[in-house]
Amino acid sequence: MPIAIPEVVIDRLPVYARALALLERQGRDVVSSQELGEQLGVTPAQIRKDLSYFGRFGKQGRGYNVGRLLAELRQILGLTRDWSMVLVGVGRLGRAIVGYAGFAPQGYRIVEVFDSDPEIVGSNVDGLTVKPVDDLESALRDQKIEIGIVAVPGANAQDVIDKLVAAGVKAILNYAPIAAQVPLDVHVKDIDPVLALQSMTFYVKDQTSPAK
Amino acid sequence: MPIAIPEVVIDRLPVYARALALLERQGRDVVSSQELGEQLGVTPAQIRKDLSYFGRFGKQGRGYNVGRLLAELRQILGLTRDWSMVLVGVGRLGRAIVGYAGFAPQGYRIVEVFDSDPEIVGSNVDGLTVKPVDDLESALRDQKIEIGIVAVPGANAQDVIDKLVAAGVKAILNYAPIAAQVPLDVHVKDIDPVLALQSMTFYVKDQTSPAK
Repeated sequence: MPIAIPEVVIDRLPVYARALALLERQGRDVVSSQELGEQLGVTPAQIRKDLSYFGRFGKQGRGYNVGRLLAELRQILGLTRDWSMVLVGVGRLGRAIVGYAGFAPQGYRIVEVFDSDPEIVGSNVDGLTVKPVDDLESALRDQKIEIGIVAVPGANAQDVIDKLVAAGVKAILNYAPIAAQVPLDVHVKDIDPVLALQSMTFYVKDQTSPAK
Repeated sequence: MPIAIPEVVIDRLPVYARALALLERQGRDVVSSQELGEQLGVTPAQIRKDLSYFGRFGKQGRGYNVGRLLAELRQILGLTRDWSMVLVGVGRLGRAIVGYAGFAPQGYRIVEVFDSDPEIVGSNVDGLTVKPVDDLESALRDQKIEIGIVAVPGANAQDVIDKLVAAGVKAILNYAPIAAQVPLDVHVKDIDPVLALQSMTFYVKDQTSPAK
């Protein structure tokens, strides 16, 4: 089992896998770290270093075998199986997430949806019946569901996250604008467009400040 | 002008600012790097190092003045002004983005929406009339709009991004599952839930593999 691999490295592997999948669809057999780096805006050295955590891929000066490296990355990332997910929060954002067409082709499937609003509970969203969030733990008891998606307002998010953790969820995709508190064995990724915008305006504010 | 500040540092500043804003709303005057680190899941040393790029904040053993540090971070990140944005792609995802309640309180406002579908062009989305994407450059000519949001399918995304760049946009929030190619002076942040899921299943697959 690989140990002490920096999280930033793990975060880049899916990006590499996505690029390799595209190359494979284009019928490419081999790609250099140079070309891959240019496509992805990272240095070839970075790609080689990231992959070196997982063994030796490709031969010096020969490039990577696209199909083989993709298969290895899919194995490493756990993408060779399907994953069931639960979603909490079926407002406008939650509905968009349920309807997001990008999950299914990658093996991610929302199988249960929950909300706290009695007006929403019992309604149908894309074929799923919305269940009360208080039933989360019992609803998940007999199912092997490792991934939870949080699409509730910030004020309710930590409470929902605690419920997901109590129900055995080990990975949380958090759309709420909070820094979630979770045990060490639970992983959280934030999807927060405002944070992304704020880190870009750092650069843009300089470019567009009036010249003197 | 600050130079050579790692992008990962810039990416953390909005997270610090968000935590400080919450502390300020709670009436707190002072916070230690220790407490801030615990809230955010980073080490106090990391926080101190990140902030040291921008000068000296706080006194050894005294903690940070919440209001002052927040004001400084808002200045650094360009959050003291409002930002206008354009959105391209008014499908289900695009509509959810237009309706996202988190933008306005942070000073981000979608002022123009575009789509390529003649059936959608001319329709009204939250008070905005959808314009044809081919009119993007002319529509933006007389406006100071630095931020574009891309919510089109992957196959159309690079073309839309090229149009945004040609129209002078300097920051792109990209919801499409592609590695966007942009000039060096244009910044892109990807919002891709699948990549986030894939980087988490790396960890979860190990935890849930059958014990032997």
